[in-house]
Amino acid sequence: MADQYTESPDAAVSQGIPTLRWDEPPEGPVLVLLDQRRLPAEEVELVCTDVPALVDAMRTLAVRGAPALGIAGAYGVALAAARGYDVREAAELLDQARPTAVNLGHGVRRAAAAYHRAAADGATPERAAAVALAEARALHREDAEASARMAEHGLALLDELLPGGGFRILTHCNTGALVSGGAGTALAVAGAAHRKGRLRRLWVDETRPLLQGARLTAYEAARTGMAYTLLADNAAGSLFAAGKVDAVLIGADRIAADGSVANKVGSYPLAVLARYHHVPFIVVAPTTSVDSATPDGAAIEIEQRPGHEVTEITLPRIPEPGQSATASVALAPLGTQAYNPAFDVTPPDLVTAIVTEGGVVSPVTSAGLAELCNRSRSGNGMMAK
Amino acid sequence: MADQYTESPDAAVSQGIPTLRWDEPPEGPVLVLLDQRRLPAEEVELVCTDVPALVDAMRTLAVRGAPALGIAGAYGVALAAARGYDVREAAELLDQARPTAVNLGHGVRRAAAAYHRAAADGATPERAAAVALAEARALHREDAEASARMAEHGLALLDELLPGGGFRILTHCNTGALVSGGAGTALAVAGAAHRKGRLRRLWVDETRPLLQGARLTAYEAARTGMAYTLLADNAAGSLFAAGKVDAVLIGADRIAADGSVANKVGSYPLAVLARYHHVPFIVVAPTTSVDSATPDGAAIEIEQRPGHEVTEITLPRIPEPGQSATASVALAPLGTQAYNPAFDVTPPDLVTAIVTEGGVVSPVTSAGLAELCNRSRSGNGMMAK
Repeated sequence: MADQYTESPDAAVSQGIPTLRWDEPPEGPVLVLLDQRRLPAEEVELVCTDVPALVDAMRTLAVRGAPALGIAGAYGVALAAARGYDVREAAELLDQARPTAVNLGHGVRRAAAAYHRAAADGATPERAAAVALAEARALHREDAEASARMAEHGLALLDELLPGGGFRILTHCNTGALVSGGAGTALAVAGAAHRKGRLRRLWVDETRPLLQGARLTAYEAARTGMAYTLLADNAAGSLFAAGKVDAVLIGADRIAADGSVANKVGSYPLAVLARYHHVPFIVVAPTTSVDSATPDGAAIEIEQRPGHEVTEITLPRIPEPGQSATASVALAPLGTQAYNPAFDVTPPDLVTAIVTEGGVVSPVTSAGLAELCNRSRSGNGMMAK
Repeated sequence: MADQYTESPDAAVSQGIPTLRWDEPPEGPVLVLLDQRRLPAEEVELVCTDVPALVDAMRTLAVRGAPALGIAGAYGVALAAARGYDVREAAELLDQARPTAVNLGHGVRRAAAAYHRAAADGATPERAAAVALAEARALHREDAEASARMAEHGLALLDELLPGGGFRILTHCNTGALVSGGAGTALAVAGAAHRKGRLRRLWVDETRPLLQGARLTAYEAARTGMAYTLLADNAAGSLFAAGKVDAVLIGADRIAADGSVANKVGSYPLAVLARYHHVPFIVVAPTTSVDSATPDGAAIEIEQRPGHEVTEITLPRIPEPGQSATASVALAPLGTQAYNPAFDVTPPDLVTAIVTEGGVVSPVTSAGLAELCNRSRSGNGMMAK
């Protein structure tokens, strides 16, 4: 079934950033995504009525970001079940939509397991579908709750580190509602400060090469009414030198057992600048991002991305069937090779604090991190398995 | 007279980067520019037969960079004189083509003064035109010679700082033949190392927002056969962390009396990273860039550029009459404000050495810098007034 585009600015305004939501119109259940390929130019919802449409949306980056992909995957299983498709086949398709997104597989398996358990226990297909949907909703809710807790802990930390308020916060990449079932990680903290009237300025790194800051964080900041200013990544240095940055807040793609933080490339230079200028450098991430099997930063494998992301500028467009969701224009001479790591690694001694849904680790030590993770994982049901 | 486009790859290959050259075909004298608006996609010469065509080429950035503009301005005066136009009017038009480029006025006034002196001494118009051309050629040659000396001093410094050779040099913005009558400043040093077989890798910062690294430095590196790799500016941090940068080489837009260096935004973060990683940070600039009237970094006024350079991507195109030489595509939400300083300031204590045509200052002190400038300005005729 072909995707349908519907404009619904009212729903968007009333609910904050509507990254994804389950809906049940008379024609049958659907998963509704905010089409991130069209941001920031247009705010358009993409309605997925079946799993192939959702897989296509994932592949073409209409929905992106590890937690959001996990939630979308779980809803995708529920969608297949509710519409009477083969759930096992649907789960397989979804799981392979983005092979590197670990959360996607988690979400898909969690909803599929709930469905199969219910079916094995003698539930009707309708009842089992309802169980799968309940599981997807639970994952969605847990992610939103983890965001809310990170925001709360992060804001308390800022108040402690920066008495007097009026924070000027620098952030990198996109760590907000667009990658989450809730308000996100680092951007959730900035959002909480904003709602309390304590955010004086959000400095938004454009985040080359894929411009998630310019395209997505600026969009979220504008949508929620924050006072924000965009900058080329390399202009952050003069902001530090002018004393205009009170704290750096970033997310994390993976945190090693020693507290080394792998995050979007460009995070490490900010950590070095922050240290040189005595500015707090704060990482906000759920405890699920802590990988105790990775001992330290050197053990984190860094994904090298294709050079064309640097040598060409990739502009979003609405794909025709068989086309990609982007169009490219060359910026550098043909044949130019590029060094294009997706992430860099910040060692724990440059990180002032790691904020999780379970609390704050500061100073960042292996022991402190391990204790917090153990507490979070055993102490509550909020964590995605 | 309308500009004419001619393709001349052979000339380009045989002469290195043909930024600009005087030519005298049977139809009369012309100034031939490499059209930088069409780089890196195409290598096309732009033939200017009169001053309005040259002024248009300057305004639309077919030729750019302070020293190159000065040389082009001087040749423009010679062109007007050789073709029998009013030299005073031509000089005025040229001087106003780019009001902020101080070297442009220097070059124009120098050639015009030579012309008027000759005329006042009773020279025929033809003879006075030849004198103006000789003055333009002298400026061109002096600039090329200053580049060659900077390259020589810079290479000797690298050999001293990094015994063992095989330099992996990181550079920012474009500081090569495209902005100079010779091989440029920082890139001239890298070029000298390359010709001696001692350049292992040139790391080229793309240099947001205007991408002079991706568009122009990569072009020069490719044309001269250097082993180069392009990177997003924020990826430099992980190169330092991996120990893959042996030295940073940049140019300077202005150097204060205390040795503070104003250069393309993004230079200062590289200086902080270089210090953190114990990597030499070397500034290469002619002594004309030292402004003894500016006492220190705080006294350097930093030009704030329009935000649309960050919020939109500006792609070069061939302008139709009345059009600009670029086309723009929005990257950020409409209404997004951007912080877009053209330069940042690196304090002298982060600068390992300043390399000029007259020698090297290291450590960078007010006294050392003043002494070298005095020596250069009095000791030889190489300096543009």
